Amino acid sequence: LSPSVDGGHFPIKRVVGERVVVDCDAFADGHDELAVRLRHRPPRSDEWHELPMETLGNDRYRAAFDVETVGRHAYGVIAWVDRFGTWRRDLERRLDAGQDVSVDLLIGADLVRSAVDNAAGSARDRLSGAVAAMTDGAAEPEARGRAALAPELAALMATRAPRSHAATSDPIREVVVDPVLARFGAWYELFPRSASPRPGRHGTLRDVIARLPYVAGLGFDVLYLPPIHPIGNAFRKGANNSLDAKPTDPGVPWAIGGPEGGHTAVHPELGTLEDVRALVAAADDLGIRVALDLAFQASPDHPFVREHPTWFRARPDGTIQYAENPPKKYQDIYPFDFDSEDWPGLWRALLDVALFWIDRGIRVFRVDNPHTKPFEFWEWLIGEIKRAHPDVLFLAEAFTRPKVMYRLGKLGFSQSYTYFTWRTTTSELRDYFTELSTPPVRDIFRPNVWPNTPDILHETLQVGGRPTFQARFVLASMLAASYGIYGPVFELGENVPREPGSEEYLHSEKYEIRHWDLDAPESIAPLIRRVNEIRRAHPSLQTNDGLAFHATGDDQVLAWTKHITPAWTDAPTGRDGVDPDPILTVVSLDPREVRTARLEIPVAEVGLDPELPVEADDLLTGRTQTWPGGRGTLLLDPADCPAAIFRLRQGPDDR
Amino acid sequence: LSPSVDGGHFPIKRVVGERVVVDCDAFADGHDELAVRLRHRPPRSDEWHELPMETLGNDRYRAAFDVETVGRHAYGVIAWVDRFGTWRRDLERRLDAGQDVSVDLLIGADLVRSAVDNAAGSARDRLSGAVAAMTDGAAEPEARGRAALAPELAALMATRAPRSHAATSDPIREVVVDPVLARFGAWYELFPRSASPRPGRHGTLRDVIARLPYVAGLGFDVLYLPPIHPIGNAFRKGANNSLDAKPTDPGVPWAIGGPEGGHTAVHPELGTLEDVRALVAAADDLGIRVALDLAFQASPDHPFVREHPTWFRARPDGTIQYAENPPKKYQDIYPFDFDSEDWPGLWRALLDVALFWIDRGIRVFRVDNPHTKPFEFWEWLIGEIKRAHPDVLFLAEAFTRPKVMYRLGKLGFSQSYTYFTWRTTTSELRDYFTELSTPPVRDIFRPNVWPNTPDILHETLQVGGRPTFQARFVLASMLAASYGIYGPVFELGENVPREPGSEEYLHSEKYEIRHWDLDAPESIAPLIRRVNEIRRAHPSLQTNDGLAFHATGDDQVLAWTKHITPAWTDAPTGRDGVDPDPILTVVSLDPREVRTARLEIPVAEVGLDPELPVEADDLLTGRTQTWPGGRGTLLLDPADCPAAIFRLRQGPDDR
Repeated sequence: LSPSVDGGHFPIKRVVGERVVVDCDAFADGHDELAVRLRHRPPRSDEWHELPMETLGNDRYRAAFDVETVGRHAYGVIAWVDRFGTWRRDLERRLDAGQDVSVDLLIGADLVRSAVDNAAGSARDRLSGAVAAMTDGAAEPEARGRAALAPELAALMATRAPRSHAATSDPIREVVVDPVLARFGAWYELFPRSASPRPGRHGTLRDVIARLPYVAGLGFDVLYLPPIHPIGNAFRKGANNSLDAKPTDPGVPWAIGGPEGGHTAVHPELGTLEDVRALVAAADDLGIRVALDLAFQASPDHPFVREHPTWFRARPDGTIQYAENPPKKYQDIYPFDFDSEDWPGLWRALLDVALFWIDRGIRVFRVDNPHTKPFEFWEWLIGEIKRAHPDVLFLAEAFTRPKVMYRLGKLGFSQSYTYFTWRTTTSELRDYFTELSTPPVRDIFRPNVWPNTPDILHETLQVGGRPTFQARFVLASMLAASYGIYGPVFELGENVPREPGSEEYLHSEKYEIRHWDLDAPESIAPLIRRVNEIRRAHPSLQTNDGLAFHATGDDQVLAWTKHITPAWTDAPTGRDGVDPDPILTVVSLDPREVRTARLEIPVAEVGLDPELPVEADDLLTGRTQTWPGGRGTLLLDPADCPAAIFRLRQGPDDR
Repeated sequence: LSPSVDGGHFPIKRVVGERVVVDCDAFADGHDELAVRLRHRPPRSDEWHELPMETLGNDRYRAAFDVETVGRHAYGVIAWVDRFGTWRRDLERRLDAGQDVSVDLLIGADLVRSAVDNAAGSARDRLSGAVAAMTDGAAEPEARGRAALAPELAALMATRAPRSHAATSDPIREVVVDPVLARFGAWYELFPRSASPRPGRHGTLRDVIARLPYVAGLGFDVLYLPPIHPIGNAFRKGANNSLDAKPTDPGVPWAIGGPEGGHTAVHPELGTLEDVRALVAAADDLGIRVALDLAFQASPDHPFVREHPTWFRARPDGTIQYAENPPKKYQDIYPFDFDSEDWPGLWRALLDVALFWIDRGIRVFRVDNPHTKPFEFWEWLIGEIKRAHPDVLFLAEAFTRPKVMYRLGKLGFSQSYTYFTWRTTTSELRDYFTELSTPPVRDIFRPNVWPNTPDILHETLQVGGRPTFQARFVLASMLAASYGIYGPVFELGENVPREPGSEEYLHSEKYEIRHWDLDAPESIAPLIRRVNEIRRAHPSLQTNDGLAFHATGDDQVLAWTKHITPAWTDAPTGRDGVDPDPILTVVSLDPREVRTARLEIPVAEVGLDPELPVEADDLLTGRTQTWPGGRGTLLLDPADCPAAIFRLRQGPDDR
């Protein structure tokens, strides 16, 4: 049975409006006909819907259902030996061979008789009538046999015949259906404390509200804020991660908890719970979801340390175990002890943290380092939350080994950060996005692709400057349906590392309040705005399916199309009224030299007519070229923009 | 976990002396070290043996165990977070960074203390001593830390530390271990009634005893006899399947049962139970196993029909349902009704049939049409028999859809007939044998490859004559570790079909007694004898692993090597003292024209040294050629033999 994750142990993922195409093997001993049905059940229902599955040959069957509501849907297959169908097939062969079918009609009549009890009303009457006709000694056997082949009788029997020895796929498979935002969205991260319009003043949530039109204007769907809670004083880090913080240093937002409160409090200098409500409401008006950070750890000043000392691991000397990656020590952070004797109390308290913010309108969480907490904890926590709030989404910030990252997806995380930042060559990018966009990964792991984060300023950005920022932005946003940037440092091209070889930012906002000039002329905000417009206009960019890479004749240039194909049956956007044009993106990874891409798009494979010329509308410049047979040549100039985006069109340019 | 069939629902297959290489993913949240152990358990034992698994990177682990006894072995993986190993790793890092490890030593001492209770004798003393040393306030922490890194302590802790939260793979996986004959053997089928040295006399089991030296002389390991039971008279078929049998027609051996008895009786004209014993004993002396046919069906004259009418399906007119493939009717055969109300009685009686012959020395059964009986029946019957007689083998004669054939392998059949007969082009053969020799098929399905059977005289043999018989024989015997021929028709080149387009033999032995001249000059017996010698001399031919196909420059010529490689860890024959030379076989499928094969064997890939010349010993002609770089040219003349077999050698020709 497919799709099926680890033998059905974990659910697959879909978003509202998508299709689940189910394939299965079904066979029995002998040569009897089988009845094979797909069953599916929406959330909070006891009733299975059934669909006949069509045979694909080689004992393989297929059917599909659409998921229209968020929540956990169930599906599976039920199959049985179709005794009437087998009898009917054989009867036809006997009649065609001119054999006497008298006895066969008696056998068939017994089969129909066994279905009468499962029928009511006119169906029951028609079945009883069929029995009478089949056993009517006054009529010729051949005529009775021909009559018994009537499709109406076969249809009645298909639903009314007893299903003796029916086999049901086990275990019941599930599909977690999320809002479309789980698949498609552009994320923007900013530090609220740096959002003040005046340098030197601590930014507030009200400042973030004032920043919303900028974020919405760039076309972002999610605004993600690092932790907004009180910050501990004990072992507070200073600028550039120094151990000797000055009294004016604001501390690291992930060192959560102080005298003012813990995970359910708001940092006093940022504002109040009321300000959070106001921010969520203002964002909502602009179509933006606010995402908060679930960072399940505490500063030594967190109220939990005093109120629930057993939730932390004690060392033999009586001190509390701080976070470590030996020999490194993070004495400003106490991890929770998830194996604490009072683990039920701890787990419940952490669930309550999430529910607290859900009650205040938060529907999206970015989860800090989930891979350092037990798998069982996340399966339980996300399960509990989604049972009551199936529209809530969780982004896993797990930069760890592949199997752990995929496991977190299976456990329930809606999305995950990826290795994109460290995939810097054309072949690495091609391999990685192929893996991400095909089963089994496709069914359990939704990538959210970031060219930078507060923890990761990749060397390519440090070295490549503005063209590399442009290239990495277009790669992220056009390869993946969900992506994000950490701004304003990203659009402003901030790229100085703390020291050579480090991926940390110099004067990182993790430790310092910064002030940004959003109107700086070098900002790539116009490119970001235009790309987000293109993503919204073209459905093929809103999923990770339909991705195909193409040769460019230059291993520093990556080219790919996203398109809607008939085979792309899992997505709803191939339906009527949706722009079917494939979108071609070409990106040069070279920040210095002009590169030439020699393209030869396989026209038929991306859903176009190989007999017609291809018009390539450059969606960044507005120019159109004609590419006979999908062949075109392109110059990519890093001084201007090392990326180009084309709509490949054969109809009129009416959009 | 691999190998694993359908999530562990079915066992894998091995033969005595083979290796089971187990791979698994193991990972936990966080960055702790894991302890990962392979566990395996021999038949009829409660004790698990444990082996450490080595890491392959990317959270993958591997270990292997050898199976030395027939029966069902169990295996699985147990893994847990290695708290001491993690502590030890971190301690080393702390010491290397010059940190104070006083508190860490207290933590480590607690871990060692928890192991003391699991230890006895000197191990217990040494663990207690380690605790004392680690907590000895008189010594410097650094010195105590260095001492605590001692490998001896790590080794003690590896076996004695408590395995808290250990995870065990579920379900327990099983491997059915068979005698080597399940993997490697040459089968010969003959009709005993045609074994008379005098034309016109009904052959007997004593005649078969007299034929044994011929069969052994050709190098066969198994002698398979079609059913030797009394044959029904009702609806008996005559020559060439005619419906009007003459009184002298002997009937079809598969129409089992007459007044003289059923499945446990011997056809009076063939002999007695005592003759069966004598045949088994005489065969045993020549190293040959006698295989009988389990054809679970009855003639209308079978004693069961009278004694157990409920074991057959009644039609509404009171008659018994005969076998059918509508519109074809087989009125001489009554199938058993496996869904009979008295199915336990029927199943038990059929089990008793097999046990009856096992008691008389039979260890190999060819099972007729198993795919037309319930899967559950076979799983039960083979399971019951192998529980008491794990050395008994079952060959499935199922020519049906691939998934059903593979399912029968999973259920317990030791071997199966294949589609070989109908794979007649080089690409079909290459694809099919690649599928058969690689997982998942390799672990659950052992092919037994037949160029002909009493039911199948393929068109290629009808048309191609002697060269095609030679070619198909070499294909079968050199591609597959187990193969068989239906003789003497095969070695004598009998190839006239009943009618054009039919795969039935004219004057088939299924309906008539025949007489054969074993000394006919056109017999290919000498080729058969030589090939069986070669198979016995070269271990790479005794498994289906290590198969690689090679280009020949001619799509009518197939070339392949079988070789023992380091990666071929599942086979015991790569061990010391075994001939490691790869064997190259080249076969032309063209029965008319001389074909030229231009070979370029990838020397390193077949385990040879690319720097040295390759000596190619032609094992059929005795001539040797030198092939620099594995390059050689070869003429294949159908007038002589369209096949060639080479030992590729770089050492002296000392064998």
